[in-house]
Amino acid sequence: MMSFQLRKDGRKLDELRKVEVVRPFYSHAEGSVFIKMGNTWVIVACTVEEKVPPFLKGLGEGWITAEYAMLPRATPERTVRESVTGRLSGRSQEIKRLIGRSLRAVVDLEKLGERTIIVDCDVVQADGGTRTAAITGGFIALYDALQFLHEQGKIEEVPIKDYLAAVSVGLVGGLPLLDLCFEEDFEASVDMNVVMTGSGNLVEVQGTAEKGTFTRKELNELLDLAEKGIMELVEVEKKILGEIK
Amino acid sequence: MMSFQLRKDGRKLDELRKVEVVRPFYSHAEGSVFIKMGNTWVIVACTVEEKVPPFLKGLGEGWITAEYAMLPRATPERTVRESVTGRLSGRSQEIKRLIGRSLRAVVDLEKLGERTIIVDCDVVQADGGTRTAAITGGFIALYDALQFLHEQGKIEEVPIKDYLAAVSVGLVGGLPLLDLCFEEDFEASVDMNVVMTGSGNLVEVQGTAEKGTFTRKELNELLDLAEKGIMELVEVEKKILGEIK
Amino acid sequence: MMSFQLRKDGRKLDELRKVEVVRPFYSHAEGSVFIKMGNTWVIVACTVEEKVPPFLKGLGEGWITAEYAMLPRATPERTVRESVTGRLSGRSQEIKRLIGRSLRAVVDLEKLGERTIIVDCDVVQADGGTRTAAITGGFIALYDALQFLHEQGKIEEVPIKDYLAAVSVGLVGGLPLLDLCFEEDFEASVDMNVVMTGSGNLVEVQGTAEKGTFTRKELNELLDLAEKGIMELVEVEKKILGEIK
Amino acid sequence: MMSFQLRKDGRKLDELRKVEVVRPFYSHAEGSVFIKMGNTWVIVACTVEEKVPPFLKGLGEGWITAEYAMLPRATPERTVRESVTGRLSGRSQEIKRLIGRSLRAVVDLEKLGERTIIVDCDVVQADGGTRTAAITGGFIALYDALQFLHEQGKIEEVPIKDYLAAVSVGLVGGLPLLDLCFEEDFEASVDMNVVMTGSGNLVEVQGTAEKGTFTRKELNELLDLAEKGIMELVEVEKKILGEIK
Amino acid sequence: MMSFQLRKDGRKLDELRKVEVVRPFYSHAEGSVFIKMGNTWVIVACTVEEKVPPFLKGLGEGWITAEYAMLPRATPERTVRESVTGRLSGRSQEIKRLIGRSLRAVVDLEKLGERTIIVDCDVVQADGGTRTAAITGGFIALYDALQFLHEQGKIEEVPIKDYLAAVSVGLVGGLPLLDLCFEEDFEASVDMNVVMTGSGNLVEVQGTAEKGTFTRKELNELLDLAEKGIMELVEVEKKILGEIK
Amino acid sequence: MMSFQLRKDGRKLDELRKVEVVRPFYSHAEGSVFIKMGNTWVIVACTVEEKVPPFLKGLGEGWITAEYAMLPRATPERTVRESVTGRLSGRSQEIKRLIGRSLRAVVDLEKLGERTIIVDCDVVQADGGTRTAAITGGFIALYDALQFLHEQGKIEEVPIKDYLAAVSVGLVGGLPLLDLCFEEDFEASVDMNVVMTGSGNLVEVQGTAEKGTFTRKELNELLDLAEKGIMELVEVEKKILGEIK
Repeated sequence: MMSFQLRKDGRKLDELRKVEVVRPFYSHAEGSVFIKMGNTWVIVACTVEEKVPPFLKGLGEGWITAEYAMLPRATPERTVRESVTGRLSGRSQEIKRLIGRSLRAVVDLEKLGERTIIVDCDVVQADGGTRTAAITGGFIALYDALQFLHEQGKIEEVPIKDYLAAVSVGLVGGLPLLDLCFEEDFEASVDMNVVMTGSGNLVEVQGTAEKGTFTRKELNELLDLAEKGIMELVEVEKKILGEIK
Repeated sequence: MMSFQLRKDGRKLDELRKVEVVRPFYSHAEGSVFIKMGNTWVIVACTVEEKVPPFLKGLGEGWITAEYAMLPRATPERTVRESVTGRLSGRSQEIKRLIGRSLRAVVDLEKLGERTIIVDCDVVQADGGTRTAAITGGFIALYDALQFLHEQGKIEEVPIKDYLAAVSVGLVGGLPLLDLCFEEDFEASVDMNVVMTGSGNLVEVQGTAEKGTFTRKELNELLDLAEKGIMELVEVEKKILGEIK
Repeated sequence: MMSFQLRKDGRKLDELRKVEVVRPFYSHAEGSVFIKMGNTWVIVACTVEEKVPPFLKGLGEGWITAEYAMLPRATPERTVRESVTGRLSGRSQEIKRLIGRSLRAVVDLEKLGERTIIVDCDVVQADGGTRTAAITGGFIALYDALQFLHEQGKIEEVPIKDYLAAVSVGLVGGLPLLDLCFEEDFEASVDMNVVMTGSGNLVEVQGTAEKGTFTRKELNELLDLAEKGIMELVEVEKKILGEIK
Repeated sequence: MMSFQLRKDGRKLDELRKVEVVRPFYSHAEGSVFIKMGNTWVIVACTVEEKVPPFLKGLGEGWITAEYAMLPRATPERTVRESVTGRLSGRSQEIKRLIGRSLRAVVDLEKLGERTIIVDCDVVQADGGTRTAAITGGFIALYDALQFLHEQGKIEEVPIKDYLAAVSVGLVGGLPLLDLCFEEDFEASVDMNVVMTGSGNLVEVQGTAEKGTFTRKELNELLDLAEKGIMELVEVEKKILGEIK
Repeated sequence: MMSFQLRKDGRKLDELRKVEVVRPFYSHAEGSVFIKMGNTWVIVACTVEEKVPPFLKGLGEGWITAEYAMLPRATPERTVRESVTGRLSGRSQEIKRLIGRSLRAVVDLEKLGERTIIVDCDVVQADGGTRTAAITGGFIALYDALQFLHEQGKIEEVPIKDYLAAVSVGLVGGLPLLDLCFEEDFEASVDMNVVMTGSGNLVEVQGTAEKGTFTRKELNELLDLAEKGIMELVEVEKKILGEIK
Repeated sequence: MMSFQLRKDGRKLDELRKVEVVRPFYSHAEGSVFIKMGNTWVIVACTVEEKVPPFLKGLGEGWITAEYAMLPRATPERTVRESVTGRLSGRSQEIKRLIGRSLRAVVDLEKLGERTIIVDCDVVQADGGTRTAAITGGFIALYDALQFLHEQGKIEEVPIKDYLAAVSVGLVGGLPLLDLCFEEDFEASVDMNVVMTGSGNLVEVQGTAEKGTFTRKELNELLDLAEKGIMELVEVEKKILGEIK
């Protein structure tokens, strides 16, 4: 009952928002989902291209890259389109690099062969945690794209090494919260994005204190909280995808 | 039964695709819809800004402008993002100008006062007729945004002069078709976009023959067909919005 | 005498401005003209390139594309150069697409072979109707470029299927006017650009009502007027080029 | 007779190409000319703006700036538009800076008052010496723009301190040539652009040896030659403008 | 002796590279250093501007922002300039955001008043750890810029709350290494950048595993190592700046 | 004693600033220097690429090109980065063209073979004469890069035809000054950059009078002064590089 008062939407401190996944979202894409985590909605679509970036040519390895954007009215205040400003914002670039890096961590790129999978993440509505929702949704869409390649006989197996999910955690008013909505994120003294595998190993930890600092103890509490949330998201993935291998 | 064979999806020559409108789509936007015409899906969101472009400053008039974009995987083949190429394509610019111009035709801009409404049209999935769906959906969202301004006491009435809807028509294999899907559009010898008011007056006629040419008689047949479709779309609008005034 | 009062420059409602064509304009271009329609002056120059855009590679077909620009002082108020803003305006892109599309309509692209003709249209002075002057002048320059290819033995015949010309028409103060100058265009309630072949078939109809709307009847009157003007322009072309075929 | 053989077009070593000036070129511009030096044709148009660049604000001084561009087919090989590449080439920037600097040298900027004159130089056809033709033509157009301001009562006198003209000279096959055409410029071992006033003072000397080097003696011979040509151009200006003060 | 073999340059696993600081680097900048950490060399220069970004206007608070770039030949292979590609790379944007955020964490922005300090970090030579060297050097330069403002009487005190330094750590061949050079960074399975205050509190933790994953235990070992290195860097800062307050 | 009063830094009218050259600056670049001429500091680094620009392909000749940039705080007032504005300024482009052209004048490009040497000139601190310092420093770094190619057996000899150096001269308060610092440059009525070979031949003369004009006599005095300074710089080069050939 107390947590009812602590978070605007009545969630407990360590409670995820409701997760919904429409899969597939497109009939024509190699893998795609519409993932909702509360009011954060992301369309993820995978595209397979039979080529790799120049730095991988001839090495026999594949590549996974991501793009990230928001519709202009995903946010309460309209955001100017990056196609109008003519350049990707620093924020978009940082996030697209994070998503790509995270997804590559659980894929055996040699088994993928010399091809690239582009993971397009388009935020339809943004209420905090858009990058982590994109990673979790991206994992599911990527699995489907790899499954599609497997079914087409282009790869011998689905080269996924483990489940992957991501969540944000943070300190708000001194309290550790799981899965921050926009308002909570705005008020947080520490904000952390954590990407983990189904086995509980870390792939990425990005903790930031813009207002003030944080201690090693707080870091560890936040990581515990993130792990709890990520394991629940992995359960969702297991329900959707079944046991991997 | 014959029309069953004439169009892939079994529609009659003069039959619209199924129209679905989610309204509002966003809780936080001044007016917004998710409009589906068959497999063409467009999110339209209106944003009110309390300023006008430089050329209107001090004239006491308002302005309505549109933006148009497609998600990269709206199409079977992925399209490179305009934020990555760094410039709007000629096609996007042509369409955003058409949408803005069409919507302005049914609004009393003086009664709007010195403010701008930006109508963002984002195509989630594209199967032909994205610009006409954006105009029809844009009209509904715009009405809601004006209603919102009216409810806030910022304008004395909803300054809409008439219903507005748009549809594409074309000659495919010599036959006049209503509401072309992508494949039909691709095969069409003549392609026409028509924007009309609820009273049956024309706002915009854009007829193009890239393969060959067309006669005045064919032009008139296509306009008849467009009028039929647009009147049906106006009926949909009336169901959604009620009688205007 | 009445027409004297109706139009500033004393023209009758259905009277073209004086057309002058300097041909060739350049000695070194494959085809070029300096076309004047009253105070609207356009330099058109064709360039043949022995390659086609990627989407046509290997198909054995040719391509015709146009570019459109204005000198900064073509207009009474100086316009900022697009090379300075770093991007083509929406207007320029829309017009260059229209010109290219119109010219392609009367060329047998297969007979052109795998080569591209770029039709550069540079407006030296603008007084309304720049895009239609560019199409009419572009047709003559294009004919010469094709003739040049023919004389060089690169194509077996001049693959032009028909004459092509374009004109603007509009409703100004309720009156239908032919070949609008800038001021008339500015005041027009309906503005229409029409592209037709020598046989009187339509290639493009673009009718726009920004102030108010227009009826089917008015559309037809305007098309009649446009047809009259275009047939006169085709006569000019015949005098310059002789009978085609 | 010997000079007949030395230069393609039969000119003597120290002979200018034929100079023709259409003045004014535009009826609506504050000052404008179409200057031809042989096959080099440049449209120059001046625009007065009642403001100055930020670094001059509040100092009571005026500014003169130039822009320089070529039509794509000014040259035998078509050049890609700078509006398409999205940036001014280094060459264009260097030339526009040279033109502006040269014209400022003969204007009393304090007497101009806080306004800017933009001198647009658009090369319609290029056969060497486009920048020097732009300076000579620019001087005449600028004089007219200043005269226009004077007639409007905005400035008390035409604040021109002296005539100004420019010409190119160069060493071709060891011979000093005046007013190089494109082919001569291409073959020159030394190429020099000289800007001088009517009193024979130097404003700008830009001598460049890309192939090899040049001696002080050669520099002086070239400067003598340039002076001869510039004095002839000043005579042309005197015929056109009359005696300045 | 064993550590001699473990790291190319003979360092122990937990040993920093040699730190050298030239301070000030510029005589004319408000604060500047040339910091060397081994072969990683960074010029940091602070500029004070008496204005704040739009989102802070009127709030009475200051702002600290950073820019980050590398000379083209900072690296063994030349890198193309971002001024030539026309856009900041994703990497540069991510790093400049990190530097700005980190420095803001130890400054009392209200006491800074409505002014911005731009911290330019230009990497002259890059051998790993450029962003952390930029943060450590940036802290010293920022202190000097604030001291400069204090001496000018613009702020009442130097509004620095604590020392700040940063270092990279990583797992290479299973071993935790402090202050990775480029080669070690390239081979690392986990790479982490840590920013801490003089009191040992965390400001930023960015741990990334592109090859494989890492455990909570490994995370903690790396954080211990980072803390050791950062405390040594804080000692360097203390020698240079003296005790803060 | 009088000259003490004439120039701020106590130099005689015809005295160079102190020249210092750190060579090599980078251990990893094919040729590099850090050149200081008083408070003007430039890092020059040469990069060899085994390819040539398109216009030289297959001709068996090499190419030398330069780039020029300034660190944002090279100047007392911070300059916005060209990577942020997204385009090279006209000034940078003009200077990079001058440096490349000058260096090419003393290299036998045929003996260089089909490869390009990029000469990156980055101004760390700017106090006038940055372009001439870049040319003088660039010559030394280029010599080393060619020596490097020679030692690698890629070219048979070092294809340098002569020494090369550059200096600025100008008229300040009617007095001819050698090697202008920023303040002197700012006050100069005539500013001239001269590039010469060790044999005293001219490669480039760029004399500009923005305030007023200059006579042939003044031109010659300035050239004499420049020659004196350049010969001293050539002596410095001889000490560093030894006799060429």
